[in-house]
Amino acid sequence: MEKLNVAIIGASGGIGSAFVRHFAGNTSANVLAFSRSGTDFDLPNVQSHTMDFHDESSIERAAKVASESGSLDLVIVATGILHDDSLMPEKSIRNLSAESFEKAFRTNTIGPALVAKHFLPLLKKDERAVFAALSARVGSISDNRLGGWHAYRASKAALNMVLKTISIEMAMRQKKTIVVGLHPGTVDSQLSKPFQANVPDSQLFTPEYSAEKLVAVIDRLTPADSGKVFAWDGLEIES
Amino acid sequence: MEKLNVAIIGASGGIGSAFVRHFAGNTSANVLAFSRSGTDFDLPNVQSHTMDFHDESSIERAAKVASESGSLDLVIVATGILHDDSLMPEKSIRNLSAESFEKAFRTNTIGPALVAKHFLPLLKKDERAVFAALSARVGSISDNRLGGWHAYRASKAALNMVLKTISIEMAMRQKKTIVVGLHPGTVDSQLSKPFQANVPDSQLFTPEYSAEKLVAVIDRLTPADSGKVFAWDGLEIES
Repeated sequence: MEKLNVAIIGASGGIGSAFVRHFAGNTSANVLAFSRSGTDFDLPNVQSHTMDFHDESSIERAAKVASESGSLDLVIVATGILHDDSLMPEKSIRNLSAESFEKAFRTNTIGPALVAKHFLPLLKKDERAVFAALSARVGSISDNRLGGWHAYRASKAALNMVLKTISIEMAMRQKKTIVVGLHPGTVDSQLSKPFQANVPDSQLFTPEYSAEKLVAVIDRLTPADSGKVFAWDGLEIES
Repeated sequence: MEKLNVAIIGASGGIGSAFVRHFAGNTSANVLAFSRSGTDFDLPNVQSHTMDFHDESSIERAAKVASESGSLDLVIVATGILHDDSLMPEKSIRNLSAESFEKAFRTNTIGPALVAKHFLPLLKKDERAVFAALSARVGSISDNRLGGWHAYRASKAALNMVLKTISIEMAMRQKKTIVVGLHPGTVDSQLSKPFQANVPDSQLFTPEYSAEKLVAVIDRLTPADSGKVFAWDGLEIES
């Protein structure tokens, strides 16, 4: 039986590491785990590697390493930033700054786009293959009712556009390749930590639960889904 | 009769200068024309000023200058970049680069967002007032059928999200303020020059025609339109 070749980018994060552990549980899977630190999972079918996805040459080197394992069935980009020491989601127009926008675009849009550039050529060409990137419901323009979080929202809307644009090119070249954005729900992770107060317990997921749900979504995808964004429950999120 | 106070940002561009000339033809209008070079229009009711909209302190100073003319009825952000000496719209995923994305986001998304931050407070609070930024049909994710132009498309989708997010905050604070994106059509300008070959003559507009059409669209806007994107023909463009 052929091995399932999976690459997880952002493997040290909450959801990223849950994806790695999920696929590691499948003994016929070969998992490539990329993170800035190269976090070692110490699991027999997981290979850990470093990748700084703010640096295209590092992404290119990582793709070269990945290519040595044969062509890929699945690439998941599980990176993302909402806040850090110097970045907080904006509550008002008054809080907008070029730095916050640049940081959000660099991590949430440009990083995944450059990963796509170097990892899409590694996907299986004549079999079903999936390229998925973590997006977010708040990246939906039509679904935006509360406002706020300007830079994060803009960076995810931009990511959704990049995924859609890429899906069009892939559909012309490799009809079995599927490109999608995924909304993981609100996951108990570093990203959501400061914003969990208003989330009911039943809607705050563990990384494991979210990863499991998203894998089920990925499993059901068909080429007709390419270019779209899906939530953890399988429902499409409109642009 | 009260003066119509209008600020045009990006007044030296093809469409920007057409807006300036359009409003200058209205003798009861007072037009503030902002551009990097401070292009002088030599018209009695036009005041020209410099603004480097890649520099927030310059935008802040420009807003201070604008505030001296009393509160504004209309702000139009008519800036935008699709190509320059070092930037060409991508035909393929292979052409993606961090530099192209950063340049597109800086000019097409972050610049207009920072203008909004400093100019929205200058709009009339208790009367109808409009903040409009030039967007583009290719910034619509759902309307994307051809692919390509990744960075430009992403930057305009991000701009549309910023405008939507801002419109929500304004609706809570000043119910008569309308925030929209505008698609000018394909206009015979520096921006579209290398891409006009496939545009039928009847669909290639002069800047004057496009500006006139867009002013008619602006004139018909109501608060219910806030947060949306409209084309030169008045039709809404979905996200």
